[in-house]
Amino acid sequence: MAEFNRPLEIREMEIPDLLPGQVLVKIMASGICGSDVHMQQGKDPRLALPMSLGHEGVGQIVRMSGEKTTALGEKLKAGDMIIWNRGVLCGRCYHCTITHQPSLCTKRWAYGIHRSVSDPPHLNGCYAEHLILSEKTDILLLDDRDPAVYVPASCSGATAAHAFEYARSHMNIGDSVLIQGPGPLGIFLVAYAKASGAGQIIVTGGTQSRLEMCREFGATVLLNRHDNSPEETKEAVMSLTQGRGVDVAIEASGSLKAVMDGMPLVRIGGAYISAGFGEPAGSVQFPWFENVIRRNLHVQGVWVSDTRHVLEAMRLVQMNYDMFSKMITHRFKLEDATAGLNSVASREAIKAVLVPND
Amino acid sequence: MAEFNRPLEIREMEIPDLLPGQVLVKIMASGICGSDVHMQQGKDPRLALPMSLGHEGVGQIVRMSGEKTTALGEKLKAGDMIIWNRGVLCGRCYHCTITHQPSLCTKRWAYGIHRSVSDPPHLNGCYAEHLILSEKTDILLLDDRDPAVYVPASCSGATAAHAFEYARSHMNIGDSVLIQGPGPLGIFLVAYAKASGAGQIIVTGGTQSRLEMCREFGATVLLNRHDNSPEETKEAVMSLTQGRGVDVAIEASGSLKAVMDGMPLVRIGGAYISAGFGEPAGSVQFPWFENVIRRNLHVQGVWVSDTRHVLEAMRLVQMNYDMFSKMITHRFKLEDATAGLNSVASREAIKAVLVPND
Amino acid sequence: MAEFNRPLEIREMEIPDLLPGQVLVKIMASGICGSDVHMQQGKDPRLALPMSLGHEGVGQIVRMSGEKTTALGEKLKAGDMIIWNRGVLCGRCYHCTITHQPSLCTKRWAYGIHRSVSDPPHLNGCYAEHLILSEKTDILLLDDRDPAVYVPASCSGATAAHAFEYARSHMNIGDSVLIQGPGPLGIFLVAYAKASGAGQIIVTGGTQSRLEMCREFGATVLLNRHDNSPEETKEAVMSLTQGRGVDVAIEASGSLKAVMDGMPLVRIGGAYISAGFGEPAGSVQFPWFENVIRRNLHVQGVWVSDTRHVLEAMRLVQMNYDMFSKMITHRFKLEDATAGLNSVASREAIKAVLVPND
Amino acid sequence: MAEFNRPLEIREMEIPDLLPGQVLVKIMASGICGSDVHMQQGKDPRLALPMSLGHEGVGQIVRMSGEKTTALGEKLKAGDMIIWNRGVLCGRCYHCTITHQPSLCTKRWAYGIHRSVSDPPHLNGCYAEHLILSEKTDILLLDDRDPAVYVPASCSGATAAHAFEYARSHMNIGDSVLIQGPGPLGIFLVAYAKASGAGQIIVTGGTQSRLEMCREFGATVLLNRHDNSPEETKEAVMSLTQGRGVDVAIEASGSLKAVMDGMPLVRIGGAYISAGFGEPAGSVQFPWFENVIRRNLHVQGVWVSDTRHVLEAMRLVQMNYDMFSKMITHRFKLEDATAGLNSVASREAIKAVLVPND
Repeated sequence: MAEFNRPLEIREMEIPDLLPGQVLVKIMASGICGSDVHMQQGKDPRLALPMSLGHEGVGQIVRMSGEKTTALGEKLKAGDMIIWNRGVLCGRCYHCTITHQPSLCTKRWAYGIHRSVSDPPHLNGCYAEHLILSEKTDILLLDDRDPAVYVPASCSGATAAHAFEYARSHMNIGDSVLIQGPGPLGIFLVAYAKASGAGQIIVTGGTQSRLEMCREFGATVLLNRHDNSPEETKEAVMSLTQGRGVDVAIEASGSLKAVMDGMPLVRIGGAYISAGFGEPAGSVQFPWFENVIRRNLHVQGVWVSDTRHVLEAMRLVQMNYDMFSKMITHRFKLEDATAGLNSVASREAIKAVLVPND
Repeated sequence: MAEFNRPLEIREMEIPDLLPGQVLVKIMASGICGSDVHMQQGKDPRLALPMSLGHEGVGQIVRMSGEKTTALGEKLKAGDMIIWNRGVLCGRCYHCTITHQPSLCTKRWAYGIHRSVSDPPHLNGCYAEHLILSEKTDILLLDDRDPAVYVPASCSGATAAHAFEYARSHMNIGDSVLIQGPGPLGIFLVAYAKASGAGQIIVTGGTQSRLEMCREFGATVLLNRHDNSPEETKEAVMSLTQGRGVDVAIEASGSLKAVMDGMPLVRIGGAYISAGFGEPAGSVQFPWFENVIRRNLHVQGVWVSDTRHVLEAMRLVQMNYDMFSKMITHRFKLEDATAGLNSVASREAIKAVLVPND
Repeated sequence: MAEFNRPLEIREMEIPDLLPGQVLVKIMASGICGSDVHMQQGKDPRLALPMSLGHEGVGQIVRMSGEKTTALGEKLKAGDMIIWNRGVLCGRCYHCTITHQPSLCTKRWAYGIHRSVSDPPHLNGCYAEHLILSEKTDILLLDDRDPAVYVPASCSGATAAHAFEYARSHMNIGDSVLIQGPGPLGIFLVAYAKASGAGQIIVTGGTQSRLEMCREFGATVLLNRHDNSPEETKEAVMSLTQGRGVDVAIEASGSLKAVMDGMPLVRIGGAYISAGFGEPAGSVQFPWFENVIRRNLHVQGVWVSDTRHVLEAMRLVQMNYDMFSKMITHRFKLEDATAGLNSVASREAIKAVLVPND
Repeated sequence: MAEFNRPLEIREMEIPDLLPGQVLVKIMASGICGSDVHMQQGKDPRLALPMSLGHEGVGQIVRMSGEKTTALGEKLKAGDMIIWNRGVLCGRCYHCTITHQPSLCTKRWAYGIHRSVSDPPHLNGCYAEHLILSEKTDILLLDDRDPAVYVPASCSGATAAHAFEYARSHMNIGDSVLIQGPGPLGIFLVAYAKASGAGQIIVTGGTQSRLEMCREFGATVLLNRHDNSPEETKEAVMSLTQGRGVDVAIEASGSLKAVMDGMPLVRIGGAYISAGFGEPAGSVQFPWFENVIRRNLHVQGVWVSDTRHVLEAMRLVQMNYDMFSKMITHRFKLEDATAGLNSVASREAIKAVLVPND
């Protein structure tokens, strides 16, 4: 990406020598994230041009400088198909060493977001044929099934895992879960809810095809806001929960309206987890007493994810491969990346991936 | 039961008037628990003869003294099919009011265990046509499917829920779980592991038919101790976990040998949960440093269960009704209760129930 | 209280016979809570006139109907000095039996708030010489020191215990804690922070005498908003925390401005706990992304308290009796209750109590 | 240390050039740990001779290779007084990246234990004038008070912090805590219990001078096993807890007898935490049902510690500096290290430190 709001260009680059611990990866599939659309529109202040987009990727090891093992201790070798934590952490800051919340590392940076093409080793994004992984990147080994199916595990799947860890600490088998927003993040959340023994899995949203996809992943009730007024949605949720409201609600839409609509749908003493926001969204009129105090509500904001979450997402896809393969509705060649971005912007695609070598 | 180690007898009794809050229930199905076998053999010091066995039951409300609601707030009426917490709690002790661990209530007593036929209201056990529920009993409403399938939810299912709550607080999606013992408790644990997103679900045991039942409930690996030496079992577990051991192991066999074999199969920093013991079992030579310290192990003993656990078990059965219906391998009439006890003692039955009115 | 916004009147009433489980208590001291002021002004929709105010109390047992024990299992007798949970719970609802959050009991009612003088047993508030405790009330035994010092444990102390349980689950020894509002609730929170090993205990507020009281309870830094602009407060907090912000902040002021000022003072990944609101307070413009998402913030609303919290508060006072005795700055006779309310409304008193028999 | 069971020798060594990220530290004080005595006796299989003992240390930065910051983000410079995590972690293994239990790092090694003098950079132990810290060592900044007082924070203080984190998750303000063993680890545990709001802090042990030290740190009840039979100890504990037993017990003695004596002193549903074992200790006859199952006990083994725990210990010492200064009963010059080991072996010293430059 050389300029915002312009088609992406292909640029030829040389592959530099590897520094100790670096890994040269041949990208087999990279994901087009909703946030890539925002980046291409110049809405993300973290970017420095020119740069290569692409923070979600799966690839094959071409070569490594030195010995490397996965986070599970498996020895890596050329030819291995891998996925990795898109965020690179310092390992030394307050969050890395004291709070054990490494996703909050004060020096965290991500491939395809924080590095320009000018920053060594230059191959810093996944919309590319090759990527060079930092010596600090945590790597996981994949099986030999279609790499494209694993791509979403590295971003929306991992963020959903992060969000759902909070949810699990507030729910028991059979509890009811509400998920707001049926995009890739929401679809993953439905799968986590199912894999966590949720009873009712209620999904609200506005795109019927995405809602239908949620049903295939385990949603028990779909509420399209074009067919249900907020009052009807509330009535439906309450009647499914003996009038209490859901035990846990998770926002995956990035909409302030969803936050305001969702909190009153949570039972007193329940949890509201907000995971869908990737950038500032303005302010909202917030009735603090009614939403938070009188409900004795637990509220949790979710920001990015760490290696554990990538592992959880990878394993969830492994355990439900056929189901997740349906999520990849669109594939584009590298030279058609701009068309891919458009398919995501229009919500035509549920999940679109770039496949460099098709 | 008038005498230990003798066939059970049927005794006719009058139904007394109900005190405020009591509920007269027509038993539709009651479970024959492994501990009933021990009780009939006189091994349980809590019993006073003559008494009616049967702490697991499902029934229909005949009449109530006053208005009653379920723990979920639904209003109850005659004809409703219900299940209940087999333990009756005081509501006032340290555990009921301070620690919020009501299953540890210092005055807890259970139907079919702690009350003799002489104790009012006399109808105190589920091996019977009628039972009178205390005004302090927590009740849950069932749907109209086969009551027998729900019976195990009131004891082994609830205890398994209790055990698995600890397990969940130590595991993430995709983690590996070992379950020792494929009886009704172990089968429920397999179902909870599956419903909690476990990756590997490894079951060890000695009865092949029960191990096979575990596979139907979601077990991924079965290790019959008649086919695998302890060393082979260890090797198998380690090779499934990159040499680390399982993240969580749960004992459901009541065997000290299982405890000693199982702890070294848990990864460092993992959890070992012991839920299969219902009575004293003697001592074992225990290598404290190797088992607990150097592994930084979390160990949790599990004693009985509370109303939340019955709800979880009931919902798990609801969500997997067809699967759980396979678990009920034997049904007996009330007059054949002794034969039922024998079918459990011999491990011929996986789960046997008494159906008074068949 | 016969009418809102009028002086309270003394009314003679007969002591009725006790029903089973009830306890007749001679009130030795009752607390004037900030919310009593609001009730007297007619701002609380839960009240039905005529009624007796007073939800905080300590008293001596006159007589009981039947045997009673404390929540710790001690046998009670006439003459015992006691404190109790001001809230009476049903013991049967979703929160009492399933979620184990009994303070959220759907049928909870409190002495001095929800019962009118017309509701049996009529002696339902602590601004009185006698109170009748329900058979469902949890009771704790006091030592023989000044009852007035224990009075705040039954309301603000218990609510602070509830709030601080959340805080403790998010802090380690030496962590920094911010407390907003130096009233009785905030003073208790300071004491809990000290008793939980907090490093920095920073208190913000507007009444210097109350801030000074906080210092005696363990506050390390006082920030009076009349001396410090919001920017100066932020600068001070950041410089005390190497620029991160506090690990945990607790709101004890009931002010929306405090909420908005406080959240940005919490470190990324920290916790914000809001405990100071007792009634609706309108809406506030809320920047969701900046406050909650990007900070990966944990937010917890706190509503009332349960018996465990009363026990914690009672024990905290016991361990720090001399310190807490300083908090009782004003004492009034029963006939001067209106003057007592005024001393609280004007913030002249830190804590005012009624002492019926002085 | 050139040979086991022989006096330590002083050896002159050259200070090598620093590799990137390394820090040359002038040792100001190093601690003589009980485990050093065992190492000198050849009982620890982790050692390779010749080596320098000393895993506890405080020192001054002489020079660094590159820029360094503390775990709290403060920039380091020559002359700074520092403490550090004695364990060096890989940052890449299952525990470093997935479970967030870095103290369990599969490649963890500690200064003064796992490295011989032959391993670069050769200056690997704290019984020395200089130490070279690895580029992966987490560092914390001290104030300018006596370094010797901070020394215990790096080992027993940190391990106690680790143990007490588990304790805190099982206790509320005012709860009762039992600590078995009044050595440095036990003394720190008393301080943590005090700093966590424990009500009763009961200490058992056999050395009266150490028990008396515990009283200065906050113990409320001392039970010397030479004055109290196990039955008397049990009676005393039960009478302090209304017959329930303590909420939490922590073993800090490394004795299997303590484990067996201690578990029955914990209330049903409580926690038993074992932190005093540093090496294999044989087996013990263990009544699994009575100790673990029927008590529904939570048991936790504790192995070493991580950087967060060092920070907690450092802060605890900072907040209670005068109190902790009493713990340092003996100081030795480097050339008298063998005498120092003897003072620890004989339990004459509570805590002995080496002060190279006295």
